[in-house]
Amino acid sequence: MNNIVLASASPRRKELLSQLCLSFDVIPAESDETFYPSLSIEENIVRLALGKAKALEDSAQPDKIIIGADTVVCLDGKVLGKPASEDEAFSMLKALSGRTHHVYTGFALIRKRDGKQITGYEKTEVSFYHISDDDINAYIKTAEPHDKAGAYGIQGMGAVFVKGISGDYSNVVGLPLSRIAKALGEFGVRVFK
Amino acid sequence: MNNIVLASASPRRKELLSQLCLSFDVIPAESDETFYPSLSIEENIVRLALGKAKALEDSAQPDKIIIGADTVVCLDGKVLGKPASEDEAFSMLKALSGRTHHVYTGFALIRKRDGKQITGYEKTEVSFYHISDDDINAYIKTAEPHDKAGAYGIQGMGAVFVKGISGDYSNVVGLPLSRIAKALGEFGVRVFK
Repeated sequence: MNNIVLASASPRRKELLSQLCLSFDVIPAESDETFYPSLSIEENIVRLALGKAKALEDSAQPDKIIIGADTVVCLDGKVLGKPASEDEAFSMLKALSGRTHHVYTGFALIRKRDGKQITGYEKTEVSFYHISDDDINAYIKTAEPHDKAGAYGIQGMGAVFVKGISGDYSNVVGLPLSRIAKALGEFGVRVFK
Repeated sequence: MNNIVLASASPRRKELLSQLCLSFDVIPAESDETFYPSLSIEENIVRLALGKAKALEDSAQPDKIIIGADTVVCLDGKVLGKPASEDEAFSMLKALSGRTHHVYTGFALIRKRDGKQITGYEKTEVSFYHISDDDINAYIKTAEPHDKAGAYGIQGMGAVFVKGISGDYSNVVGLPLSRIAKALGEFGVRVFK
C-alpha cells in the first residue's frame, strides 16, 4: 500500500496515475472552482488544486498523501474551461483552430500527519492544425468535447487536430506524471522499487 | 465497415488507432527489418513501413486500406532498436539520460484495388531528465523496456523520465495519428462523419 489518494473525479487522471503502477484510491473532491481575476493563471490553478486536496484532508487518514490537480486551456491570456453548450464548444474549437495555445495543470500533494505540502504547475504548448467547420461540428456530435477544458481531448479523437506539442504530454491530459513522480519521491514513495 | 487493416503486432499501435473510433482489423505483418546503411533514417523507416503493408497485399481483399508503420529512436545519428538484453537496455537508457533524442515513425497506406499509396514519416524530439543508475536498474526489472525501441515506453512508467517532447506525441508511442487520419481522408475515410 502506498497511502496515495487521488482527489479527482476525472477518469483521465485516474488512468494517467495508473501508468506509474502504484496503488492508490480515488475520491472525487468537491471544492470551489472560481478563478480569481486578481490572481495569475498559475496562482489560480495551484490554489484550485490545493483546494481539491484540502477538501479531503479532514476525512482522510493522517498518513494519506492526497493529490489534487486542476487543468485549464489558455488562448491569448483567456482561460477556456469546459464548454457549457455545443455553441460554446464550437466557439472554442474555432478559436483554437490553426493556432497555438497553452495547457496548464496545477497540482498539490498534502499529508496531514506531518503537514508536508508540495505544490507546483506545468505548462505545455499545443499547436492545432486548421479545422474545418464541418469537422468541428462532426467532432461535437461525438460528445467528446463536452466535459473537456478547451472542448477537446488530446487522448481521444481530438488527437487529429494536434500538429504538435512542446512540453509534457500527460500535463495536457490532466496530470504531469513526471512532476508527480518526483513529488511523491519527496514523500518517500518511489515509482521504481 | 471502413476496410482498414493495421499491419502490426504492436498492442500500442492498435490502441492508438482505436483512439480514432474507426473499425479496423489487425494482422501482424512479417517483413524484413534490416536498416540499409546507404539509406537515410527517413528512407529506411518509410521503406520498412511500406514493407509491412506490402507483406499483406497478396492476401488482403482489393478494397482494403493496409496501414504499415515502423518506429525507431535516434541519438546522435545512431539508431536504437529494441534491446536484446538487460545490459543493452541499461546502455540505451544510460545514453538517453539527461539528453535529447528523436523518435521517427515511418508510415505507409496502400490499396490494391487502385494501386493508391501514401507514405510519410513524422519526427518528434524527446528530452529526458537525468536518470540514476538505481532507477535504470529498477525500471529494467519491471520488464517494460524489453520490447520497446530505445528501451522505454512513454505511455508507461517511462513517462517519468520524460521532461518534455516537441512534436507529435502519438508518433513517439508508434503511430502519428493526425498524419494517419489525413492520409485516410485521401482514401475517402473520414474520422468524423
